[in-house]
Amino acid sequence: MVVALRLPSLTSLFSSPSVSRQSPAILRRRHHILPPLRAAGFSAQSAASSPPETEGRVDKQKNKVSQERVNQDRVITPRSQDFNAWYLDVIANAELADYGPVRGTMVIRPYGYAIWEAIQEYLNVKFKETGHSNMYFPQFIPYSFIEKEASHVEGFSPELALVTIGGGKELEEKLVVRPTSETIVNHMFTQWIHSYRDLPLMINQWANVTRWEMRTKPFVRTLEFLWQEGHTAHATPEEAEKEAMQMIDIYTKFAYEQAAIPVIPGRKSKVETFAGASKTYTIEAMMGDRKALQAGTSHNLGQNFSRAFGTQFTDENGQRQHVWQTSWAISTRFVGGIIMTHGDDSGLMLPPKVAPIQLVIIPIWKKAEEKTGVISAALSVKEVLQKSGIKVKLDDLEQRTPGWKFNFWEMKGVPLRIEIGPRDVSSGSVVISRRDVPGKQGKVFGISMEPSTLEAYVKDKLDEIQSALLGKAISFRDSNIVDVSSYDELKEAINLGKWARGPWSASDADELRVKEETGATIRCFPFDQPQGIKTCLMTGNPAEEVAIFAKSY
Amino acid sequence: MVVALRLPSLTSLFSSPSVSRQSPAILRRRHHILPPLRAAGFSAQSAASSPPETEGRVDKQKNKVSQERVNQDRVITPRSQDFNAWYLDVIANAELADYGPVRGTMVIRPYGYAIWEAIQEYLNVKFKETGHSNMYFPQFIPYSFIEKEASHVEGFSPELALVTIGGGKELEEKLVVRPTSETIVNHMFTQWIHSYRDLPLMINQWANVTRWEMRTKPFVRTLEFLWQEGHTAHATPEEAEKEAMQMIDIYTKFAYEQAAIPVIPGRKSKVETFAGASKTYTIEAMMGDRKALQAGTSHNLGQNFSRAFGTQFTDENGQRQHVWQTSWAISTRFVGGIIMTHGDDSGLMLPPKVAPIQLVIIPIWKKAEEKTGVISAALSVKEVLQKSGIKVKLDDLEQRTPGWKFNFWEMKGVPLRIEIGPRDVSSGSVVISRRDVPGKQGKVFGISMEPSTLEAYVKDKLDEIQSALLGKAISFRDSNIVDVSSYDELKEAINLGKWARGPWSASDADELRVKEETGATIRCFPFDQPQGIKTCLMTGNPAEEVAIFAKSY
Repeated sequence: MVVALRLPSLTSLFSSPSVSRQSPAILRRRHHILPPLRAAGFSAQSAASSPPETEGRVDKQKNKVSQERVNQDRVITPRSQDFNAWYLDVIANAELADYGPVRGTMVIRPYGYAIWEAIQEYLNVKFKETGHSNMYFPQFIPYSFIEKEASHVEGFSPELALVTIGGGKELEEKLVVRPTSETIVNHMFTQWIHSYRDLPLMINQWANVTRWEMRTKPFVRTLEFLWQEGHTAHATPEEAEKEAMQMIDIYTKFAYEQAAIPVIPGRKSKVETFAGASKTYTIEAMMGDRKALQAGTSHNLGQNFSRAFGTQFTDENGQRQHVWQTSWAISTRFVGGIIMTHGDDSGLMLPPKVAPIQLVIIPIWKKAEEKTGVISAALSVKEVLQKSGIKVKLDDLEQRTPGWKFNFWEMKGVPLRIEIGPRDVSSGSVVISRRDVPGKQGKVFGISMEPSTLEAYVKDKLDEIQSALLGKAISFRDSNIVDVSSYDELKEAINLGKWARGPWSASDADELRVKEETGATIRCFPFDQPQGIKTCLMTGNPAEEVAIFAKSY
Repeated sequence: MVVALRLPSLTSLFSSPSVSRQSPAILRRRHHILPPLRAAGFSAQSAASSPPETEGRVDKQKNKVSQERVNQDRVITPRSQDFNAWYLDVIANAELADYGPVRGTMVIRPYGYAIWEAIQEYLNVKFKETGHSNMYFPQFIPYSFIEKEASHVEGFSPELALVTIGGGKELEEKLVVRPTSETIVNHMFTQWIHSYRDLPLMINQWANVTRWEMRTKPFVRTLEFLWQEGHTAHATPEEAEKEAMQMIDIYTKFAYEQAAIPVIPGRKSKVETFAGASKTYTIEAMMGDRKALQAGTSHNLGQNFSRAFGTQFTDENGQRQHVWQTSWAISTRFVGGIIMTHGDDSGLMLPPKVAPIQLVIIPIWKKAEEKTGVISAALSVKEVLQKSGIKVKLDDLEQRTPGWKFNFWEMKGVPLRIEIGPRDVSSGSVVISRRDVPGKQGKVFGISMEPSTLEAYVKDKLDEIQSALLGKAISFRDSNIVDVSSYDELKEAINLGKWARGPWSASDADELRVKEETGATIRCFPFDQPQGIKTCLMTGNPAEEVAIFAKSY
């Protein structure tokens, strides 16, 4: 796989993290509309439809497309060679996303969106089970609202998109396109909350948000992204704290059990706390390049917004009090986290629980007389599995060889593959291969087509893959976290690309110095703390907690 | 119910349609931020939580709230007296929506949002069943895109919201906050579609859109609203036409079967066709005031956008062709349609299939020793019904009388109510009342609590209510459509507030004249056409079709 021969792809149009620090032209040209992507392999493929044509923009009738060329279309930069190029290649080839016409915006394509839908479906149920109701707030926020909470405006004002013209006229007050909704939520909460009986007030919205980011990367950081944002108001600080913790627990459970990402939950340092929050809890995930991804946050907002917006209630003693609040969010960034946690040189690798397609069936035949039997067996296997709730795709297109299809669906990260050939039809069995175990080791012959046997086998395998992906990610994570007790050890660990964990009670200035000198930040003070006496790695003073330092997205 | 005694409510802050024609101050003050609503009865109620406090902003401990006052909070203007005031009162009292801080924007509250979720759940499945995939396009569209399709820019440019500042800097090109996505969709389709094998391309997105409307009304017309927009590209005009028709059929079925709204599907006149479409199909619903509501549209876009954006494919003969397209949408406006179709003087009336709560249980006891038995029976009834998939709410708050709760949940439009008192507990039965049949007629005593009996009875009743609401709406609709054969008859029908149906083959100018002189527009040429020879009501010339004229929202 020679990268130099590859057609122009996302890689060449998007900056790698190292390149982006040098401010390449493409990043300096802000507000500029990118030309249409000329990458090959971008087709009209939808999640549920057939494999895309690989001719790309080449007119089949007018050009002879060599097999070599077709193969090149699917080439993915090896992950070990250039992680960022690999990431962008996977996104392009697996058709997860594409660029929007406005710099830094992203079109989420059906296959990528289906992963987001899996995230939504799980979390939406959990939110409702824990007493939250969905609702919707307008995305236009009067500029004056943003200014009301001092640290909030400081955090967000550099990255706002402003509507200044509406209906052909200059607006009297500029409108902020929401970067987050705490301000407008508090404006409304102030009108809805009167007495302690109105509390707790617990809501959530699924929405788009806009942050005018300079360095963008599909899924991980885009000008506009999709998320859910929960907002709650409580009568006591204890309840707010409990809620903030409950939500980071839900995120943690989701990450482990659905996305197979062994995040480390913990508390952010003061420096890294959300603009306007008293405390920020986070789940930090280790990507395949060992950089950290902040994958979800839950904020205890204290009374910061309720004081700024006068959100008060009358307590049981008739006293007016400001409410205690939380907010919490997970975004489409999480899709990036899934790609970067599990993917390999062959492309995407999806945990079964978030995979839009959990199993692909590839019928194989050579002679025309074999076809009917093979296809009919494939259809009945499909029906059996679909009925039992498995997300199945039958790839019966005749333009492609089985080998091409194997590669294609591996690249798309489908956890299981069933092959059915004429011999399998006669023996009433199928061949099943695992995406996460390459080659012969992952291939099992002679699994009976008998519905209950097959169904049980497939479900079992999907569970096994789900666990295996998590297990692998845990091993990877744990072998890349180094316990450090001095700044030198910390620097060495970061230099090796690892995460450093060590006792910390030093100042904000020290924390910023670490960032400047090593590029690493405190990702969190993990909830899971080692026992024993701790001495700050920087100052030698007593420390109450260990912190985790890492470079991050 | 004396309206004059009522506390300030939505009614007084929002213009009625008749008032709005006189351009009241509130509508003239564009871009102005409305002061927080001071309406009473706005509480922190969520769809799944307990009934709201009715003290409103009055501090219970400091003010004596008379029962009279509490009752006033819930007063709804009689529908017959002032339909618009009634509509706004229902929205406020049932806590469906509230105003956002920016003029014309709306906060969709949990109870209103839950109706939208019911709409989403149904349609999302139908869209997927018919081969569409969800995805997401950025909401910022370069201004130049909007200008590419001539009639599109003409239709939309007066109502655009424009982002001119991003990240603190003036943008080189203004960005349009999407009013609809045909332009950006075509920009992307042009990159994804190469050959006939990439077609059909069928996608949908659930998104927010912005149109800088001057006259707004909650749900019906707001600056920002939520919708789904489907976009498809096909190889032939026939396929595009079939798709446009398929989607208006899905909308029609949804309206009839889920929302119990007997819409009339048909084709828009040229004058009323979507800006950029070749043909627009619509479903037109008759509201309780007999005004028409355009409740959903499906457009055959022909090649208008594909020519403007160069969206071409290579056909099977190697020829380059422009694709044929459709787009189709239903929005949160539909929630307004449900309110205005079924509601009555007591408030909201929800068809069971879109009701967030299908059945409310009110336990009734007087003596303390009765409480345990009643509550335990209520809980077991709740569990039985919930298990069988019915959306149940148990209102066991002690601060309110059963009578108050009856009114409250009637106002919220819950289709069925179960009362359980001590006598019911001893006889092992419950009392069930229908929201749509007032008083004793709707009340049945002695329904057994035995799970299978109760479950079957409730399901049956819910089906009955669903049908009854549709039947009632059909009768109402049909008794308010007048067949006309002359312009005078048309004027008379419109004057009486009815819909006029008559043969039409006159000019666009004649159509505009009717609008000017009567306020009525052609809602559609219904698919369902009477047999026989037709003579245009305006010109006396032969006509191929009847059109329906009506005043509309």
